[in-house]
Amino acid sequence: MNSNTDASRSIKASVPVSLHARTSVEQVEEGRELAPKFDQDGLITCITTDADSGDVLMLGYMNHEALVKTVQTGKAHYWSRSRKTLWHKGATSGLVQEVEEMRVDDDQDAVWLRVRVSGSGASCHVGYRSCFYRCIPVGKEHGAGKELIFTESSKTFDPNLIYGDAPNPTLL
Amino acid sequence: MNSNTDASRSIKASVPVSLHARTSVEQVEEGRELAPKFDQDGLITCITTDADSGDVLMLGYMNHEALVKTVQTGKAHYWSRSRKTLWHKGATSGLVQEVEEMRVDDDQDAVWLRVRVSGSGASCHVGYRSCFYRCIPVGKEHGAGKELIFTESSKTFDPNLIYGDAPNPTLL
Repeated sequence: MNSNTDASRSIKASVPVSLHARTSVEQVEEGRELAPKFDQDGLITCITTDADSGDVLMLGYMNHEALVKTVQTGKAHYWSRSRKTLWHKGATSGLVQEVEEMRVDDDQDAVWLRVRVSGSGASCHVGYRSCFYRCIPVGKEHGAGKELIFTESSKTFDPNLIYGDAPNPTLL
Repeated sequence: MNSNTDASRSIKASVPVSLHARTSVEQVEEGRELAPKFDQDGLITCITTDADSGDVLMLGYMNHEALVKTVQTGKAHYWSRSRKTLWHKGATSGLVQEVEEMRVDDDQDAVWLRVRVSGSGASCHVGYRSCFYRCIPVGKEHGAGKELIFTESSKTFDPNLIYGDAPNPTLL
């Protein structure tokens, strides 16, 4: 990475992101204006998938600032509901998510990120690659007494080494 | 479809689905028991992707009943927040979602369905295949004055013909 790249990035980051007021269903569903609907907590839901495999890696949330930072930098930012802070994914673990493509849904209350993950490629705080590492048997498979089935046989990192004694975001 | 198949389905549907109480972080994250966390509205978030392409088709919500029906039948059921009713996806439009695989995330507050959609293959009430039919330019692409970019050039069905004058679920 040279200083030209850094300079170019800092110029991009300073360009404001236009979020429009929501004025009609037609504008929201059929328009070209980004007019996101944040919920009562000021958050929008974000689905993050692996750009190559299509696997869902995680489900996160963005506030206004996280959405803007993601658009400006091309790196995934979220709002951490457990830590109540802006969360540049990978700042602690090194597992940065480079955004290949970002999409918004019909009523603009959710976004979808297709990402490439640096380092070991993991996105889950438990140590697995995807947060969705267990199957629920359904339909024909249901009824045979099966419970959850693990789809990943080993962890990609040791959460204790990466996160130390930081609080676990999983709540009962 | 013959009567044997119907009988077999009805037996499967009558097998209860065991939802476990949440007793520890280890049980929730590392266990084989399905112990979902429903939010204050009794809902769990559901990401639905196309089993072949990996594209995200929609983001929905399930209550307890919708989750159980999906597991029992292998067909996607949701809770419609706009209509406040159980929603067997495709009951009106014919665009049934057959579940190829169902997964649950680390803290069990979200599920992921990989589905095959019957009929035209659409999952979006606006008429597009995916609800995520518009890109938000990010990073290097951001700053060039671009707004949303459509990724689908035409609709797969006319929503007016399918849904008539039913209320539009998009709220401002």
